[in-house]
Amino acid sequence: MQSLFKNVGLVARHSKPNIVASLRQLADHLAQHGINVFIDKESATQVEAGGHALIDRMDMGKLVDVAIVLGGDGTMLSIARLLAPYRVPMIGVNQGRLGFMTDIPLHEMLDSVDAILQGQFIPEDRILLQTVVLREDAEVANALAFNDVVFNRGAVGTMIEFEVFIDNQFVYSLRSDGLIVSTPTGSTAYALASGGPILQPTLQAITLVPICPQSLNNRPIAVNDSCEVEFMLTRGLDARVHFDGQSNCDLMEMDRVLIRSYRNPLRILHPLGYNYYDMLRHKLHWGERLL
Amino acid sequence: MQSLFKNVGLVARHSKPNIVASLRQLADHLAQHGINVFIDKESATQVEAGGHALIDRMDMGKLVDVAIVLGGDGTMLSIARLLAPYRVPMIGVNQGRLGFMTDIPLHEMLDSVDAILQGQFIPEDRILLQTVVLREDAEVANALAFNDVVFNRGAVGTMIEFEVFIDNQFVYSLRSDGLIVSTPTGSTAYALASGGPILQPTLQAITLVPICPQSLNNRPIAVNDSCEVEFMLTRGLDARVHFDGQSNCDLMEMDRVLIRSYRNPLRILHPLGYNYYDMLRHKLHWGERLL
Amino acid sequence: MQSLFKNVGLVARHSKPNIVASLRQLADHLAQHGINVFIDKESATQVEAGGHALIDRMDMGKLVDVAIVLGGDGTMLSIARLLAPYRVPMIGVNQGRLGFMTDIPLHEMLDSVDAILQGQFIPEDRILLQTVVLREDAEVANALAFNDVVFNRGAVGTMIEFEVFIDNQFVYSLRSDGLIVSTPTGSTAYALASGGPILQPTLQAITLVPICPQSLNNRPIAVNDSCEVEFMLTRGLDARVHFDGQSNCDLMEMDRVLIRSYRNPLRILHPLGYNYYDMLRHKLHWGERLL
Amino acid sequence: MQSLFKNVGLVARHSKPNIVASLRQLADHLAQHGINVFIDKESATQVEAGGHALIDRMDMGKLVDVAIVLGGDGTMLSIARLLAPYRVPMIGVNQGRLGFMTDIPLHEMLDSVDAILQGQFIPEDRILLQTVVLREDAEVANALAFNDVVFNRGAVGTMIEFEVFIDNQFVYSLRSDGLIVSTPTGSTAYALASGGPILQPTLQAITLVPICPQSLNNRPIAVNDSCEVEFMLTRGLDARVHFDGQSNCDLMEMDRVLIRSYRNPLRILHPLGYNYYDMLRHKLHWGERLL
Repeated sequence: MQSLFKNVGLVARHSKPNIVASLRQLADHLAQHGINVFIDKESATQVEAGGHALIDRMDMGKLVDVAIVLGGDGTMLSIARLLAPYRVPMIGVNQGRLGFMTDIPLHEMLDSVDAILQGQFIPEDRILLQTVVLREDAEVANALAFNDVVFNRGAVGTMIEFEVFIDNQFVYSLRSDGLIVSTPTGSTAYALASGGPILQPTLQAITLVPICPQSLNNRPIAVNDSCEVEFMLTRGLDARVHFDGQSNCDLMEMDRVLIRSYRNPLRILHPLGYNYYDMLRHKLHWGERLL
Repeated sequence: MQSLFKNVGLVARHSKPNIVASLRQLADHLAQHGINVFIDKESATQVEAGGHALIDRMDMGKLVDVAIVLGGDGTMLSIARLLAPYRVPMIGVNQGRLGFMTDIPLHEMLDSVDAILQGQFIPEDRILLQTVVLREDAEVANALAFNDVVFNRGAVGTMIEFEVFIDNQFVYSLRSDGLIVSTPTGSTAYALASGGPILQPTLQAITLVPICPQSLNNRPIAVNDSCEVEFMLTRGLDARVHFDGQSNCDLMEMDRVLIRSYRNPLRILHPLGYNYYDMLRHKLHWGERLL
Repeated sequence: MQSLFKNVGLVARHSKPNIVASLRQLADHLAQHGINVFIDKESATQVEAGGHALIDRMDMGKLVDVAIVLGGDGTMLSIARLLAPYRVPMIGVNQGRLGFMTDIPLHEMLDSVDAILQGQFIPEDRILLQTVVLREDAEVANALAFNDVVFNRGAVGTMIEFEVFIDNQFVYSLRSDGLIVSTPTGSTAYALASGGPILQPTLQAITLVPICPQSLNNRPIAVNDSCEVEFMLTRGLDARVHFDGQSNCDLMEMDRVLIRSYRNPLRILHPLGYNYYDMLRHKLHWGERLL
Repeated sequence: MQSLFKNVGLVARHSKPNIVASLRQLADHLAQHGINVFIDKESATQVEAGGHALIDRMDMGKLVDVAIVLGGDGTMLSIARLLAPYRVPMIGVNQGRLGFMTDIPLHEMLDSVDAILQGQFIPEDRILLQTVVLREDAEVANALAFNDVVFNRGAVGTMIEFEVFIDNQFVYSLRSDGLIVSTPTGSTAYALASGGPILQPTLQAITLVPICPQSLNNRPIAVNDSCEVEFMLTRGLDARVHFDGQSNCDLMEMDRVLIRSYRNPLRILHPLGYNYYDMLRHKLHWGERLL
């Protein structure tokens, strides 16, 4: 095999024994073909990893040329934010259940990975969101998100009130459970459950989807991904901003949250024959061809 | 006044006496400044037009450098399709009630128009959709739309069944009252009433919004405006495709409707200070600033 | 078999050969048990019916004590309106695909029907709607509906404008594609596709569901089934009112459409073990028990 | 004035000086007519109350024949749960902004209250919900709600998973942000923001409205108010059940929450001329009569 990628990182959803076995199988296979393999140390123990190098997930972006993820969309999300700064592409292998992002079934793993590493792939660049939280103009948090930035109320409190700006132009004030700012990747996740539209993965757009807005006229809006979206909490004692549902930051009244698309997109390498709509139709139980 | 535009076309919503008076006032004003004025002959009689040239609306694109529309969004729609092939920009003057596109109030007409003609404007380029209807591979209709292409069932029949393709990839089959394919301009019209998202006017996107879909999972999708959207009627005896709600074409089973963004966008010239969100907030009764 | 019902009517979805064979099988079976069988003459030819009596569907209500329907929900709908005036209950047998109303699978037909005829059933009373259309206070149409009364615009026209009253109290005026007035039975049909709620079949309620309303605040409303719902067409040149999607009446501007629940409910006899939620969960792909 | 009610309780939204002045004005007015006045001690200080009796809000149900509330819907909610066990009716006076329940404007307070106390009113009986939370079959909480019982996830956690039963029949399992079980009164509150239908206040129904359900087919359901609704938390580490957004109870996995309509409805006394739809149209900006 003539791989275009010399150094390959492997990440798996931890604590699933059959996944770990597949991880090891893949690692051995790649090493036999002269590829340097680096395994995320949260994904396997030293024993499980055999002689392959274990590395910190934080260092993967620096060390590898491509990362292969065995797991579901959640595992893809958690690693995407770490790879994007280094422009390292990802390949997703699912565990039997098709994911929105993990499109290679486990039983085709070796053949599909070989083909992709040899250059037979469909690349797809997807935006991430970069968020800065400002308190009295000082930065108190900074994070990347691949799916969404979710601004919401606490468990016990009442609805929150906030103002939304796009490119410094005031858009509206709203009382609601919160607001989702989503990438196209996130448009099939929480934003969809809240009534947002589905965005084609490569559309240069960001959506703003209110969560249970008190005003029924406040419908989802899609804006160009060159826009800066800002929300400012005007009322709410227990509000937070969440990044991909995996980390979060408490907010105080008058905090401002600024969101922009990140300078680097994340590239996903799909096997030849990949078709976004086939995946969507399968996941959402849409109607098949009639004729 | 040093106008950047030598030849100006005027269009008004017909049969409103006060509009005709404003049209004449504007024509006289422009002529006094040495501008060649051409009035759409559906908008005024020869008497109402005074000595100004009356022309056929179909010829306006060839004759003028900019068109000024006095009326509502409907009047803008009807003229937009005629101007786009000639890359002639539009200016919209409303009659007292703010329109989604007609942003100059009548009482500011002369000052605002003067400023715009002298180059003080915010240009905004908006896509149109070009549709071809194919029956057994022969073209049976061809039209432009500025808001939307609406594919729907007849008045008496039952739901229609159809298949949707994007860039020749099958997306889904659906049973519904129809499907709206909308530009960002149309996203605040019929598509919004059917549950579609609002798209920023200059977003390079097209939305597909099902009308009363039998399958609740078939949610609105936004795709890049470089995509070709196709629907094929598989069942329905009384189906039609409508262009901006102003013209339509009967469909037969197995007819294919192909939709692409048109090669020329339509440019709207807004007065300085124009803010899309201010307009939207006003039209949709969104919340004003609290602080 | 000791049947509680002496005279049994049989109705089938016409032109399906296997259905006709089942119809004949059921007719023979019932006749062997001394039951008088009456077959709808739209459902079978004289040859297909063997020696069994063929009757006009219109006369079935007068002649039978219970009607058994072989087919789908559409067949149930068409016969329900004819039986309700005579308080004749219905039994529904599906053809393999579970219906919202036809809950007996074909392969269990004989056993299930026997049990029901002997009194082992769960009765469920469902309301119908009675509609009167008034033009200048004269009645121009009158119809029953089991699912819904749908008031909508024509194929070519634009949205219609109308006023809605409940018990003679003005509720709202609206511009939309139309309005659905639905029974609980109809709440899982067109009303659901238009964003209406699901109503438990025996809930004493009627829902009003706007179709693509221009005003986003006009949400579905459920009212007591003792209410009279009225709509009056104020603008629309090509509007109609439809009864169960099976018959309709053209409307003129200023026509008034009055809708009330019909004095007799329609009784459906379900086999023991019937569970509405099991059916709904199956039809709508809701989640099964996890624990 | 010949009042039908001998003992009248007064409640006001605390800490609004002009409300307190109105409260005092009303108390003096009623006392002058020989009515025994009891003021909620959370609503006014002894000084503000003048010589009128201050009582604990908890005792109001026992002491008064009717309660008059000055404030908004929130104040009505908080007192409704205390009055229902004693079958004490309520009268609502708003502070200038029409409420869904407080329909008497402040400037008409004295005249309207006099008329109502003398028997000129439209009574409206509205259901409440009684909830029991069971942990391993032991009751851990018990509460009344006038608007809704809201079952939701915590601020930091992910979606919760739960099973829903109606009258002990399994309905569905769901992954979502939560579920709202609403009375008709609550149907215009949080349930509306989550996509639920509006229920006429006296409809004998309860609605179940999922909050951001992951499955798009899980739509709102309305059931008879004689039903018992149960949900059981199957997954979720930070879930709670809220009563009218004013009190709550932490939930553990496998907790069961049982909800029934309360044996006593709460009666609201409206002034003559009260029209629910006028109020709704005003609050929701629905279209006025055109003709």
